[in-house]
Amino acid sequence: MMRLKSKNLLSIEELTPEEILLILDTAKSIKEGSFFIEKKEPYPLKGKIIINLFYEPSTRTRTSFEIAGKRLGGEIINFDFSTSSISKGETLKDTMLNLQAMNPDIMVIRHPVSGVVNFIAEKVSASVINAGDGAHEHPTQALLDLFTIREIFGNIKGIKIAIIGDISHSRVARSNIWGLKKMGASVKIAGPPTLIPPQIEKLGVEVFYNVDAAIEDVDVIMCLRLQRERQSQNLIPSLREFSRFFGINQERLKKTKDKVVIMHPGPINRGVEINSEVAEGKNSIILKQVSNGVVVRMAIFYLLALRRQNVTY
Amino acid sequence: MMRLKSKNLLSIEELTPEEILLILDTAKSIKEGSFFIEKKEPYPLKGKIIINLFYEPSTRTRTSFEIAGKRLGGEIINFDFSTSSISKGETLKDTMLNLQAMNPDIMVIRHPVSGVVNFIAEKVSASVINAGDGAHEHPTQALLDLFTIREIFGNIKGIKIAIIGDISHSRVARSNIWGLKKMGASVKIAGPPTLIPPQIEKLGVEVFYNVDAAIEDVDVIMCLRLQRERQSQNLIPSLREFSRFFGINQERLKKTKDKVVIMHPGPINRGVEINSEVAEGKNSIILKQVSNGVVVRMAIFYLLALRRQNVTY
Amino acid sequence: MMRLKSKNLLSIEELTPEEILLILDTAKSIKEGSFFIEKKEPYPLKGKIIINLFYEPSTRTRTSFEIAGKRLGGEIINFDFSTSSISKGETLKDTMLNLQAMNPDIMVIRHPVSGVVNFIAEKVSASVINAGDGAHEHPTQALLDLFTIREIFGNIKGIKIAIIGDISHSRVARSNIWGLKKMGASVKIAGPPTLIPPQIEKLGVEVFYNVDAAIEDVDVIMCLRLQRERQSQNLIPSLREFSRFFGINQERLKKTKDKVVIMHPGPINRGVEINSEVAEGKNSIILKQVSNGVVVRMAIFYLLALRRQNVTY
Repeated sequence: MMRLKSKNLLSIEELTPEEILLILDTAKSIKEGSFFIEKKEPYPLKGKIIINLFYEPSTRTRTSFEIAGKRLGGEIINFDFSTSSISKGETLKDTMLNLQAMNPDIMVIRHPVSGVVNFIAEKVSASVINAGDGAHEHPTQALLDLFTIREIFGNIKGIKIAIIGDISHSRVARSNIWGLKKMGASVKIAGPPTLIPPQIEKLGVEVFYNVDAAIEDVDVIMCLRLQRERQSQNLIPSLREFSRFFGINQERLKKTKDKVVIMHPGPINRGVEINSEVAEGKNSIILKQVSNGVVVRMAIFYLLALRRQNVTY
Repeated sequence: MMRLKSKNLLSIEELTPEEILLILDTAKSIKEGSFFIEKKEPYPLKGKIIINLFYEPSTRTRTSFEIAGKRLGGEIINFDFSTSSISKGETLKDTMLNLQAMNPDIMVIRHPVSGVVNFIAEKVSASVINAGDGAHEHPTQALLDLFTIREIFGNIKGIKIAIIGDISHSRVARSNIWGLKKMGASVKIAGPPTLIPPQIEKLGVEVFYNVDAAIEDVDVIMCLRLQRERQSQNLIPSLREFSRFFGINQERLKKTKDKVVIMHPGPINRGVEINSEVAEGKNSIILKQVSNGVVVRMAIFYLLALRRQNVTY
Repeated sequence: MMRLKSKNLLSIEELTPEEILLILDTAKSIKEGSFFIEKKEPYPLKGKIIINLFYEPSTRTRTSFEIAGKRLGGEIINFDFSTSSISKGETLKDTMLNLQAMNPDIMVIRHPVSGVVNFIAEKVSASVINAGDGAHEHPTQALLDLFTIREIFGNIKGIKIAIIGDISHSRVARSNIWGLKKMGASVKIAGPPTLIPPQIEKLGVEVFYNVDAAIEDVDVIMCLRLQRERQSQNLIPSLREFSRFFGINQERLKKTKDKVVIMHPGPINRGVEINSEVAEGKNSIILKQVSNGVVVRMAIFYLLALRRQNVTY
C-alpha cells in the first residue's frame, strides 16, 4: 500500500501528485464510510498523542484538527501558548525539544513566522503538520479545497480557478496554487498590483488586475480574506475601494458562468472581499469546505500515523 | 420509550412536566447505577462530539458539563472565546455556522445576552443546551435544583419554596419558578422592590418584601447570588444593608422550620446573601446541588443524544 | 501488594524509602512495558477523572501530567484559573469544595503559595498531587530525578550529587534533598550565600560557596533555574556575575569527573545557570529527565488510583 514519503506534512510544494491523490482518496473513503468498514477499526488513532500548538489565534482550524483527531480516537493536547513557559523566556527550540521528549505522535503547529514549522520538524521525531506558517503555506487548507473541488466536479484536471484578493500575504493562495497546478487545474490570480507578489507567474498562473476579466469563464472563484490592516499599510486605498474593484458580489457574478462555485477559507469579512448575498447564496460552497476540512485532516492524521508503523488497526 | 420533544434544551418554560420527569428519572437511574446495568453500556456517548461554548467565565457549570460528558464517554471540545476568530471580527452567526459544518452532536452555550442561545439553536442542526443566557434562563440549574428537592423530600408537588434576593437579574430564579410551578410546588419570592421584576406574580408566585415573612413556613430557602455591581447601579443602598434585610443568617433561620433546607446556585458571596455559618451548616445542601449537577447533565446529554437516534448502546 | 500510605502525594518529606522505591519500580515496569503485560490492561485509568489545577503558568509539568493521564486512559480536565469563578471573588476553599462535589478521582495542583496544596488535600476526598507549591516542594520532579539517576547508575545509594544555584527559592532543590538523602545519596549544595537558606545543613547536606570545590568529585550536577528577578531583589550582583561564579560551562566541567551527568528541571536559562554547550552536550541528561517525567507520573497516577481501590484492571 502506498504511504506518504515524509514523516511530516509541511507544504503542498513538497508533495507529489500521487501523495495528494492518496490523501484525497483516503478522505473520500472516510467521508463515505468505506474506510471504517475496510479497516474494521473505528478508532485507528487510539492511544496516539496529538499536540495542537497554535501560536496564532484560530477557531476553525484548531477545532477542525481537534475534532478530526478525536473522531479517530486520538488524544489531543492543546498547548496554550499564552500560559506557557514562553513567558518564562524559554526559546522555541527548547519548548519543542521538551515536548518531543514526552514522545507525542503528531504535532500540529501554526506560527506567524514563515519557515518556523520546517525548523521544528527537523528538530523533533514526531510527525509535524503545518497548520499555517506566516505567508508561506497552509497545506491542509489547500488539500480540503482540492477535495471539495474534486467532490463537486469529479476531477481537478482541467478545472479553471480564479483566486482573488491579497495574494501576497496569503498562505492559502500559495498552497492552493501549488496544489491546483500539480493536479492539472488552470489558475488565474487577480488583485490590486500592491497585493500581487512579483514573479508569481513563474508558478504557472495567469495574473489579472481586473477581476471581471479573471472570473468570466472560470469554474471556481476562490476569495481570500483581506486583513484590515492592509489599509493602514497603504497597500489598498480603502476597504470600500477594494470591495468595489475586487469584492465578489451578485452584480459581478452575473457576468460569470451560471454554475461557478464560490470558495473562501474563512473567516469571511462580509462586505469586503465577499458580500453576504454571495457568501450565503446558491453558488457558495464555503461551509462544505469547512465540513470537508474535518475528513481531510482525519485522512492526514491516519496516513501520518500509519507511516509511523504502529497505528492500531 | 418517551423522548424529549425538542432537539434542544433551551428553557424550562418550554418543557412539559412529563419531560421534566423524564430527565429527573433518567438522572436518578444514573445516580443509583441502574441506568448502566439496564443499558449494559457504560459509555453511551462514545464517539459523540460535544462543544462547550462559554462566552462568560464559569468554573462550576463548564466543569460540570465537561465531567458529565466525559463520564458518558463523550468527547468534549472547549471553545476558548478569548483566542477565537471573534477577535478577527467574525460574526457570531458565522462562527456558529462554521462549527456546525464540523458536525458536532451537542453544543453547550453560555452567553451574556438573553435569547442568543435560541437564535443559535435555530441556525444549527446540533442539539443546543442553554447553559445560561443573560437574565433569561439557566435550565440545567433548575433541573438539578428540582432533582435535589425531589431527592430530599421524595416529591416536588406541595413543597413550599422561598427564592430570596435579586430576582430581576437572575436566570436561575426564572428557570426555577417555571420548573417549580410546573411540578406543583408553591413558590414565594422575596427581595428589595428594586430587584423584583414587575408583574412577576403572573408566573404564579407570591411576592414578599420582608424576607422573614417569606421564609417562616417554607421547606426550602433558595438564596440567589447578588452581583456586587448592583450597589453601583443604585439598586441596593449597600451590601451591608442588603445583607441585614435579605441575607440568610443563623438568626433568621431560628424563625423558620427546623428542617428547612438552604440552596444556592453558587458561587456564594459569603456575608452578603448568605453567611458562612449557614452555607456550611447542617441545613445547607449547596454541595449536594453541585454533585447532582453532574448526574442531571449526564441525563440531559443522554436524552438529547438518544433523540438524535444514533446514540451508541 | 504494597500500596502508598496516603491518599495524596504532597511531598517527598512524608514518603518512606519503601514508598519511593514502589513508585520508581512501577515507573520502571511502565517504561519497559512489563507493567501492561502483567496487568493485561493498557488503560487502567479508564473512566477516572483527573483535574489539572494550575495557578501558575507551566508548559512541561502540566503537559507531562496530561500526557501521563491520557496514556493510561484517564480523562483530564484542565482548570483554567484565568477564566474561573475566582474572578467572581469565590474563595479557594469554595472552589475546591465545589470541584470535590463533582467527585473527581485525582486533583493535580500547582500554587504559588507554600502549603496551599496541603490545605486543599485536607478539604477534599480526591487524591491530591502537589505539582509545585511555592518554595516548598515539587515531589514529582524529585521522583523523576531519582528515577533518572537510578536508570543511569543502577542505584541511588552512594551516588554523589551537587545541587547548584538558588537553593533558597527552589522547591525542586528541597524535594530532591529529601529524596536523595532518604535513598542514601550524598548531597552537596553550592550557591551564593544570599541564595542558601540558613540551617540547611540540618537536612544532611554539605554547603559550598565555591562551585568548583562542590562539583570536583560528584557523579551528578543538578543545576537550578535562576529566576531573573533575583537580580532586582539584590540577591545577586548581576546575571553575568552569577553566571561567572555559579553557571555550569565547558571550562568548569573540565575540572570534574569525565562521566559526570548534568541535570536541570527546566526551563533552562541559556547562559545564566547553564550554557548552551553544556545543556546540549554529551553529559546532559536534561531531555531524558523530561521523558522520564511522563512514566513517573503515570506510576503515581496508577498507584493513587489503585489505593482508591476501584481502579480498573
